[in-house]
Amino acid sequence: MPATDDFTVTPYAVEGDIDYDRLLEQFGADALSPEQKARFPSPTHPLVRREVFYAERDVDPFLDAASEGTTHSIVTGRGPSGPMHIGHVFPFYFAKHLQDQTGALVYIPFSDDEKYFLKDNSLEEISDYTRENLLDLLAIGFDPERTRIVVDTADADVVYPLATAFAKEVTQSTVDATYGDPENIGLSFYPAVQATHLLLPQLVEGRHPTLVPIAVDQDPHVRVCRDIAAKQRYDVDKPGALLSKFLPSLEGPGKMSSSGDEASILLSDDRETVFEKIRTHAFSGGQTSIDEHRRRGGNPEIDVSYRLLYYFFEESDERLERLAREYRDGTLLSGELKDIAAEKIADFLDAHQERRESLDSLEAELEPYRLTADERRAARERAGFPANALIQQ
Amino acid sequence: MPATDDFTVTPYAVEGDIDYDRLLEQFGADALSPEQKARFPSPTHPLVRREVFYAERDVDPFLDAASEGTTHSIVTGRGPSGPMHIGHVFPFYFAKHLQDQTGALVYIPFSDDEKYFLKDNSLEEISDYTRENLLDLLAIGFDPERTRIVVDTADADVVYPLATAFAKEVTQSTVDATYGDPENIGLSFYPAVQATHLLLPQLVEGRHPTLVPIAVDQDPHVRVCRDIAAKQRYDVDKPGALLSKFLPSLEGPGKMSSSGDEASILLSDDRETVFEKIRTHAFSGGQTSIDEHRRRGGNPEIDVSYRLLYYFFEESDERLERLAREYRDGTLLSGELKDIAAEKIADFLDAHQERRESLDSLEAELEPYRLTADERRAARERAGFPANALIQQ
Repeated sequence: MPATDDFTVTPYAVEGDIDYDRLLEQFGADALSPEQKARFPSPTHPLVRREVFYAERDVDPFLDAASEGTTHSIVTGRGPSGPMHIGHVFPFYFAKHLQDQTGALVYIPFSDDEKYFLKDNSLEEISDYTRENLLDLLAIGFDPERTRIVVDTADADVVYPLATAFAKEVTQSTVDATYGDPENIGLSFYPAVQATHLLLPQLVEGRHPTLVPIAVDQDPHVRVCRDIAAKQRYDVDKPGALLSKFLPSLEGPGKMSSSGDEASILLSDDRETVFEKIRTHAFSGGQTSIDEHRRRGGNPEIDVSYRLLYYFFEESDERLERLAREYRDGTLLSGELKDIAAEKIADFLDAHQERRESLDSLEAELEPYRLTADERRAARERAGFPANALIQQ
Repeated sequence: MPATDDFTVTPYAVEGDIDYDRLLEQFGADALSPEQKARFPSPTHPLVRREVFYAERDVDPFLDAASEGTTHSIVTGRGPSGPMHIGHVFPFYFAKHLQDQTGALVYIPFSDDEKYFLKDNSLEEISDYTRENLLDLLAIGFDPERTRIVVDTADADVVYPLATAFAKEVTQSTVDATYGDPENIGLSFYPAVQATHLLLPQLVEGRHPTLVPIAVDQDPHVRVCRDIAAKQRYDVDKPGALLSKFLPSLEGPGKMSSSGDEASILLSDDRETVFEKIRTHAFSGGQTSIDEHRRRGGNPEIDVSYRLLYYFFEESDERLERLAREYRDGTLLSGELKDIAAEKIADFLDAHQERRESLDSLEAELEPYRLTADERRAARERAGFPANALIQQ
């Protein structure tokens, strides 16, 4: 478990003041270089341009394939243990942005099994969140020809056989060392399921560069999977990773809560709620009185409204810089900055909700995104099952 | 791990001179009482009558249901890591015997996943053995209306979701204490799959008594599953168990090898091979010369040919007693006893092979034994998945 005196980052715990550079040393990943940033197709997504994605593993082969027009894929998943908040959709909108630009395949695994192992939710609750979260993902508008959504327990006919293959490659002591002692044997096994997620595009489509845009705390999953791929028992490349910093919670620095607590902005929030949450809860980098703010100015670096605009919601670098300048010099008040952010977020959510509401039933909408029978067969065979292995009829 | 100074019995290791009574104390199971033996329907199968099945857990509720004609089931599985030898089919023929007598449901799980986790075989080899072993099981002639065969990776659409539910109930330390430290995370998880096997009849059909006839070394699997059932989170009874001694290997006392080494009699062996294996390899309780044998007599207790007749192949108690008597008094020679056993076994295998050869394709023959869509749905719902949970379309 990577841990130092003052912070801990594992897929199951993020504590303390995170030193993102030291984390890279611990994890053995590399900072995303200016050259690599420049190779992302234009217009570069704000998450890359502004270095929210700040580190990488093997991003170059992915960028090569993207520029050459050969097969390349993005894997970005969802653990359905609650309603989705705005932080959850950044990687999906990022993936869609790249898909639109380069034709990237996008694979979206839903780890309902892991969430059951990890949380106090019942299977019924997890299943309900799965349905709700799926509708949010479908509202993003991925190209169904190039996108596959897999739910671990609903697509177990392919997920479990592949995880069986990979589970043999992972020792319990590796899991203990990577994640800490698991609470139950579902969590012991889960790294094999996660490896299945990350290798699935290659098992379905054949060997090609895969990129996993993921918060840095999830990097251990990528490493376990890369170790499996590195053994060369399967015809797959090691998946690459694009590692992000954590989105600040409304209350300020630290990882945004994923459990849908009141202070998170949910994808289902209406305009009024967004304004109320930002006004009431968004940590401000401004001064305690208007007079003092006019005199001393605010600090956009720690201002959550500003960070939200910076991370995702303000496309224009020019406008963003002007906001920072005016905030620093005291021209722009904290309440005004909050309302600018709330407006942007509410507009984004309006559009998202409108697309979601126009969807047909979940089953009908999901159908074109599911693995076809041929794709399931191809994946099983590339994982080592013979062509005549029994399958569900 | 149950271990004493002189023997070790776990599902993955049987070593030393086994004291079957002390094993019961270690495992906390009970000896099968004369009253319980007498409650098995008549004619009582030799494996019960002659106390090869010598111990039990909760056998009474099963016998109650069998005599009352209410739902009762038997679960007896197969790990497809090699060709099947005669010892492997005893529990299946025993289950068929009970099914014919009482209408018992018989569930036969194939743990191809566990065998992959445990052995050096490739997925392709395991898959080939699965197909071959299934044909041997189908040759037994179970009633397809009352029998279900489940292959873990081929029926993962139901096996994995159920195992997900149960995995949450089992800690890694329970697994470590029960089985020893697992070699890989597949084996860490497997007890949840095994619990799925043992609870499956109840999840499909509703709560009812289940009996697991199983070699005593597999009892830890039953205990882990009984602990899950005891928590009462699911509407299931604790599965009962009928625990057997080990069949002696041809070379003498100890567990019969499961890996199809030369000295095991395979289900595919022809008459000539059976006679050759028995004559060459079957450990004899006779004397080293005919003269000495005539004078001092042989010991049927340690004579493998006699044990094979005793365990399974000689129906008639009377004939068996006469053979023992004549062997002890030196009238019956070791070579003669061997030929009597070989004849019986070869006859048995002839009939088995004839039924196997008359089968249609595996897929066609297996089809009526597979879980129906409704049964899969019922099992998932009883395990806690809501009716509208996503499934493979």
